[in-house]
Amino acid sequence: MLADEMGWHAAGNTRPNPPVGCVIVDSAGAILGRGATEPAGGRHAEVVALQAAGASAAGATAYVTLEPCNHTGRTGPCAEALIAAGIAEVHYLFADPGKTEGGGGQRLHAAGVTVTGPYLEPFHLGEHRFSVEPWLRAAHLGRPHVTLKFASTLNGLAAATDRTSQWITGPTARADVHADRQYREAILVGTGTVLADDPQLTARPGGAEGPRQPLRFALGQRELPTNARLLQAGTHAPAGQLLATRDLHAALAELRRQGISDVLVEGGPELAGSFLAHGLVDEIRAYLAPAWLPRGLPALGAGGIGSTSITDLQRFATRSVQRIGEDILWLAQR
Amino acid sequence: MLADEMGWHAAGNTRPNPPVGCVIVDSAGAILGRGATEPAGGRHAEVVALQAAGASAAGATAYVTLEPCNHTGRTGPCAEALIAAGIAEVHYLFADPGKTEGGGGQRLHAAGVTVTGPYLEPFHLGEHRFSVEPWLRAAHLGRPHVTLKFASTLNGLAAATDRTSQWITGPTARADVHADRQYREAILVGTGTVLADDPQLTARPGGAEGPRQPLRFALGQRELPTNARLLQAGTHAPAGQLLATRDLHAALAELRRQGISDVLVEGGPELAGSFLAHGLVDEIRAYLAPAWLPRGLPALGAGGIGSTSITDLQRFATRSVQRIGEDILWLAQR
Repeated sequence: MLADEMGWHAAGNTRPNPPVGCVIVDSAGAILGRGATEPAGGRHAEVVALQAAGASAAGATAYVTLEPCNHTGRTGPCAEALIAAGIAEVHYLFADPGKTEGGGGQRLHAAGVTVTGPYLEPFHLGEHRFSVEPWLRAAHLGRPHVTLKFASTLNGLAAATDRTSQWITGPTARADVHADRQYREAILVGTGTVLADDPQLTARPGGAEGPRQPLRFALGQRELPTNARLLQAGTHAPAGQLLATRDLHAALAELRRQGISDVLVEGGPELAGSFLAHGLVDEIRAYLAPAWLPRGLPALGAGGIGSTSITDLQRFATRSVQRIGEDILWLAQR
Repeated sequence: MLADEMGWHAAGNTRPNPPVGCVIVDSAGAILGRGATEPAGGRHAEVVALQAAGASAAGATAYVTLEPCNHTGRTGPCAEALIAAGIAEVHYLFADPGKTEGGGGQRLHAAGVTVTGPYLEPFHLGEHRFSVEPWLRAAHLGRPHVTLKFASTLNGLAAATDRTSQWITGPTARADVHADRQYREAILVGTGTVLADDPQLTARPGGAEGPRQPLRFALGQRELPTNARLLQAGTHAPAGQLLATRDLHAALAELRRQGISDVLVEGGPELAGSFLAHGLVDEIRAYLAPAWLPRGLPALGAGGIGSTSITDLQRFATRSVQRIGEDILWLAQR
């Protein structure tokens, strides 16, 4: 868990690599070093932790959220680094699914290191969210992991019939949206949302743009004004990009090409419905307000589907639900 | 809290009286007697507890969920019974709002009993639900307390466009609906729901009709077939009644006339929307499934309201939210 906490320090900032966390402890449980994956080209979590531990790493135990890599990319393999430092024991949470990167556990074992793991599979997890999940799931899915975020009334509406919508959820929920964006690699909205609301979609956890910013994308075939806020670079956020397609698979492939494993779809209703209808939503992040509107615009569109039967119900599994201010935050996974 | 637990033993079975709980303890905290309100004409909670404690009640402390009554109705005043038994100290949670029944605290104080209370006001309460709440709120509102129950997908739908709906929520949520009905004084649905679904609306917590049954009502001006299941008496449930009106205030007045303080509105969408639109929903009990339907019938109708602006948003406050099987149960209060 402490290793995962380290991993969250890196979440959103490591593409195309996973945001791994590593903690090295001695036999008494004292922490000798800790590390999180550095941005691409930088050190992996294990190497950061080993360098922090120095010579004391000999005979110590390493806890790492992902099986140490066994592959020389822009950096040397972590398995070799652990062996060279004399680490006696390695515990890892998730197996490395990579064809070339995998096998780190075997390599460590062959070198006489006591290796335990994996402890978990990356799908159907419990309440705790691990920083490496989206990357792991993306590796299995062969496309970025998609989280659909929406906010609505308790009867599923995102705006009144006159399209007014500010504010349905309260300040605590809205602050959480910004906090969450900081840890995402990419945010995606439809061009319709850009034209209607001209959102910035930057992460502004304290009201102002923070140093951690996701990449921003607008998807669709409608033209955007060059002064759309999403297309402008911020203090920290790079300029947003237009994905001029209506093909969701093509859009996800382009994100993947840019090294993105984790994308947050923030709407509008049409895009949300489209992702759902195509079975491309892996996790739902719903902010629901205890408020009723008699009539209005649904937060989730029908995705082009006309009449339905109950067999069209697309089921997810509740991962967690909690109160957030007066609202609730509900996470559901496929 | 133990006194409230006793009160729940009586909930649903005491109309027109409140389901009060009482516990009598000695100075060491040992329980000498406990009681819950008996059905109308029977003993009040304090008297049940006093009789259980017997002579040991002298010098003891009574904890009671409602201020002891000071009024001779079908039973003698509880304040006098407590004084006669030699109770030294009384703690009560809520004040008695009754014009004739109130003043029990003063009467006890005048007799030399140490009296503490009220500890709570009956509105805007925290997560814990007290058995006397609906009765107290009804006394303040001058009409039965209305809880609106509904079940829907995460986008607010109760059925597909072809009206199929079984099952959106899972078995744990459905079992909870039956458990909840046991503690209600009355359940109300629209005649449309009776005609469409012919529901029994009895409390069947283990699958079969239990001994605790709410009164059942159908509201509306459509005629019902005499063999409608709601209109039949069950093993324990009395035959349901038709309230042949579309006037919600008149319907609630009739329930009040029958001694009902606590009514659960179970739909359908039209009736739910109507209660909401009239501002007659005091508490919402929402069972939401982590499932998406592209299109379908909303669980909550528009209550005759056409176009809306965000200022039409009717806000409630989240009281609690919890996981219930794969679904969530969300309570919100006005």
